[in-house]
Amino acid sequence: MATKSLEKLIDEFNRLPGIGRKSATRLAFHVLDMEEFEIERFTKAILEVKENTKRCRICHNFSEEEVCEVCSDEHRNKGIICVVEDTKDIVSLERAKSYRGVYHVLNGKIAPLNGITPDKLNIKSLMERVAAEEISEVILALNPDLEGETTAMYLTKLLKPFGIKVTRIASGIPMGGNIEFSDIATISKAMDGRQEL
Amino acid sequence: MATKSLEKLIDEFNRLPGIGRKSATRLAFHVLDMEEFEIERFTKAILEVKENTKRCRICHNFSEEEVCEVCSDEHRNKGIICVVEDTKDIVSLERAKSYRGVYHVLNGKIAPLNGITPDKLNIKSLMERVAAEEISEVILALNPDLEGETTAMYLTKLLKPFGIKVTRIASGIPMGGNIEFSDIATISKAMDGRQEL
Repeated sequence: MATKSLEKLIDEFNRLPGIGRKSATRLAFHVLDMEEFEIERFTKAILEVKENTKRCRICHNFSEEEVCEVCSDEHRNKGIICVVEDTKDIVSLERAKSYRGVYHVLNGKIAPLNGITPDKLNIKSLMERVAAEEISEVILALNPDLEGETTAMYLTKLLKPFGIKVTRIASGIPMGGNIEFSDIATISKAMDGRQEL
Repeated sequence: MATKSLEKLIDEFNRLPGIGRKSATRLAFHVLDMEEFEIERFTKAILEVKENTKRCRICHNFSEEEVCEVCSDEHRNKGIICVVEDTKDIVSLERAKSYRGVYHVLNGKIAPLNGITPDKLNIKSLMERVAAEEISEVILALNPDLEGETTAMYLTKLLKPFGIKVTRIASGIPMGGNIEFSDIATISKAMDGRQEL
């Protein structure tokens, strides 16, 4: 028996991904307990994020400026491009802190059955970068699924003629994971990708 | 490498209860994908919930009117009062649809170590209701923990002199739970509260 305003807010939270009815209820009640300034800061952040966020002119990463923080960072190696499906992948890769090159966001992967043909992705701008700049390596950091494999093969075919190294991130048993509970596709990938010690 | 606006929004989501860094990131990116009208509806719901929500004059439940929906519903039995710690408990109890009386929200439970003495709770208004109205039963729907027990005992002592029936909701193995994995306190409660079939 929540009030109408509460029900409305619960509905809103419930619409967010991964937020069930129970969590939505908890969150709505939490908002009721928040101070006025906290509520204002929260709603301001929601309203401003879309307003302030553009796409980087070079790599299509999210950015508040015309060129994103990675592309405008002079300590990054501009000769290596890591191709990702989605901006979210950049957040994860940056968190791992093991990569110092730049990125290129495809904004999806080839999936003809869903109407996503190569021309719908940021492939043309990738080719333009490769043609115009001194690129030594393109790393394909695409997810290891069917569409990811297809996209990787397609890009490899386009990139090879430029005479640059094209690599793909390793696939295998995740750290902390175990062989017993891994699916056969992962185990095969891990075997195929084995490295000499 | 999220933008500053994104980082701000991630921080905001991360402040909410039960939302970790990963979920907060997913939610912030989701907001970026939302349509303008959805963002507006969402922020409006957040801003309005506190504005529109008052406490019921009778039972202290959240309400948009002076008297809440339960207290103003003429089909509810006004002779039975179910005492709860928190308004959230009313939402859960109403969802179960097994109770047709009215409520009284204590707004906490007695916990002297945390500075919550009986005078900090809505106990005086409960006594006034019991004294002024025709009450046949007071159900104590307090959580089965130390403070809940203390509060139940305290209230029983105050209520008994009025000659009304004071009951406590049952404690035991939850539906779908199992004895093997239940803690000993729960098992003891379940044994003590056993009923003849």
